[in-house]
Amino acid sequence: MRYKTTIPAILLIGWIATVSAESDPLPSWKDGPAKESITAFVTGVTGADGPNFVPPAQRIAVFDNDGTLWVEQPIYTQLAFVLDRIEELAPEHPEWQDEQPFRAALEGNMNVLGDAGMEGLMQLLMATHSGMTSDRFEMIVSDWLGAAQHPRFARPYTELVYEPMIELLAYLRANAFKTFIVSGGGADFVRPWAESVYGIPPEQVIGSQIALRFELQDGKPVIVRESEIAFIDDKAGKPVGIQRHIGRRPILAFGNSDGDLQMLQWTTAGPGPRLGLILHHDDAEREYAYDRESHIGKLDKALDLAPENNWVVVSTKDAWSRVFSWAP
Amino acid sequence: MRYKTTIPAILLIGWIATVSAESDPLPSWKDGPAKESITAFVTGVTGADGPNFVPPAQRIAVFDNDGTLWVEQPIYTQLAFVLDRIEELAPEHPEWQDEQPFRAALEGNMNVLGDAGMEGLMQLLMATHSGMTSDRFEMIVSDWLGAAQHPRFARPYTELVYEPMIELLAYLRANAFKTFIVSGGGADFVRPWAESVYGIPPEQVIGSQIALRFELQDGKPVIVRESEIAFIDDKAGKPVGIQRHIGRRPILAFGNSDGDLQMLQWTTAGPGPRLGLILHHDDAEREYAYDRESHIGKLDKALDLAPENNWVVVSTKDAWSRVFSWAP
Repeated sequence: MRYKTTIPAILLIGWIATVSAESDPLPSWKDGPAKESITAFVTGVTGADGPNFVPPAQRIAVFDNDGTLWVEQPIYTQLAFVLDRIEELAPEHPEWQDEQPFRAALEGNMNVLGDAGMEGLMQLLMATHSGMTSDRFEMIVSDWLGAAQHPRFARPYTELVYEPMIELLAYLRANAFKTFIVSGGGADFVRPWAESVYGIPPEQVIGSQIALRFELQDGKPVIVRESEIAFIDDKAGKPVGIQRHIGRRPILAFGNSDGDLQMLQWTTAGPGPRLGLILHHDDAEREYAYDRESHIGKLDKALDLAPENNWVVVSTKDAWSRVFSWAP
Repeated sequence: MRYKTTIPAILLIGWIATVSAESDPLPSWKDGPAKESITAFVTGVTGADGPNFVPPAQRIAVFDNDGTLWVEQPIYTQLAFVLDRIEELAPEHPEWQDEQPFRAALEGNMNVLGDAGMEGLMQLLMATHSGMTSDRFEMIVSDWLGAAQHPRFARPYTELVYEPMIELLAYLRANAFKTFIVSGGGADFVRPWAESVYGIPPEQVIGSQIALRFELQDGKPVIVRESEIAFIDDKAGKPVGIQRHIGRRPILAFGNSDGDLQMLQWTTAGPGPRLGLILHHDDAEREYAYDRESHIGKLDKALDLAPENNWVVVSTKDAWSRVFSWAP
């Protein structure tokens, strides 16, 4: 008798646990304030009869890419790509041996490159990526991503996307949000793989851009990448990029560095329900720990301004039960 | 007996006609080569087992706005808006009396304005539209559209959209196309009303842009419109705007003037099934008739190049049974 009642109870507990796990849209998020702020916000804006309802068309969510959706340490993935390209092209450019930031790139001197900042990165980008068609560049990016591996995790970079963020993107889209990437990096570097990896189509990728030129080559229309910066989508450039591209203010923004500060300000200062989130990397064991002193993804001012703006600081250590899909 | 069989036959014919009209997604299009080219193309790219199948994500369709989706005669609607604004602001700018294109704007001298072209229009735009926030500009546009009327049709401009094109946009979206506007005019002039009128959200409106600046005004984040052209989305600028914004090549392009030539070239030169369409305004009675000699919406070179590129020239007279939703 005892035996007979015990078995079903255990089965029932197992069944409840299974159903609960299946119905949780954010299984890689630990229960806690970060997860709660997200689900409460989504429940609020989708509650048709509630005071915080937002029509689907206005459910625009913007995400930084480097350090928010995928790993940006020890260097930006796009910088790793640039360094490989520079090395490949160096024999044709002997002058790079004496010119910065090219010399630093060839020597792998990350401190000098870090100091050169986003503009330095753009210089390297232009030098290595212009004078070809947009179709050709897309192929080069795809080929590189298929071959390159992260130095620490020894996996393709496209596997170094954060599983909790992939879940969050899908959760938002399931609730009629439109998800956008707003990257300081090049839009054309992210677009070739954003759809298969993030479920974000190229037209929802906003980023820095080099100038493009349309022309006929032997009667065939092509778009050529020019040696000129057209737009830098970083810091105060992020709200500008959002306005130019989307034309309306997002209601949710998720970033991880001071480069996302103005995007967070612009998003959360609007009327109605708003959610600003900052990913704080504090888990050196599973991923990386860095903030105020980092050359890459420096998080300082935005962290100070988070409390007074009600931005949710998401600790990767405390908020995530899992970092990568392949991790235990 | 004769009577008894005749009635059902008539009813049956009536029933068939009703069903046919209800199931026709393009009721304002006359049966003929233009309509046939559209339905054949859509049937082809959506036929999952057919040789011309295109996955939904790649079903990108781009439309010019002025003269393709709504009336552009006797002057661009945006120009009518600019002229009204210039007149309103003229008392604060006595220097405009002697300066072109401002003088022409105040005098309503369309020949001089036409010669000033898209760049002249941009000059007027900047002079009348900068130094305010993006939110404020959106309000000004919406207010003006609520009050202004077309000189010939005496209706709000937003009622001067072509019903056959509204049907076409909806038909494409029903077949999993994503529809974009690619306008030579300002994106921010189209966005405030494109969603309610065309079903196209602001993030799918590409157009010319003036420079924007993010700043804090008394601690409040705003985006300010600056007196500088950031991008001209016309002629060779259209494929560039498409690449910058969408990041992949459309499979369908619909324009009506030489300003759309490069967009048509870029779209239709890609691999796989492609459809290029040119609206040819040849119906002065119901709307307007103009092409090679027109100051607004000049259609000359693109018309010459249509046959060798297999672009479908759509006569508004022959292809459309109705021009406006309110017209007989």
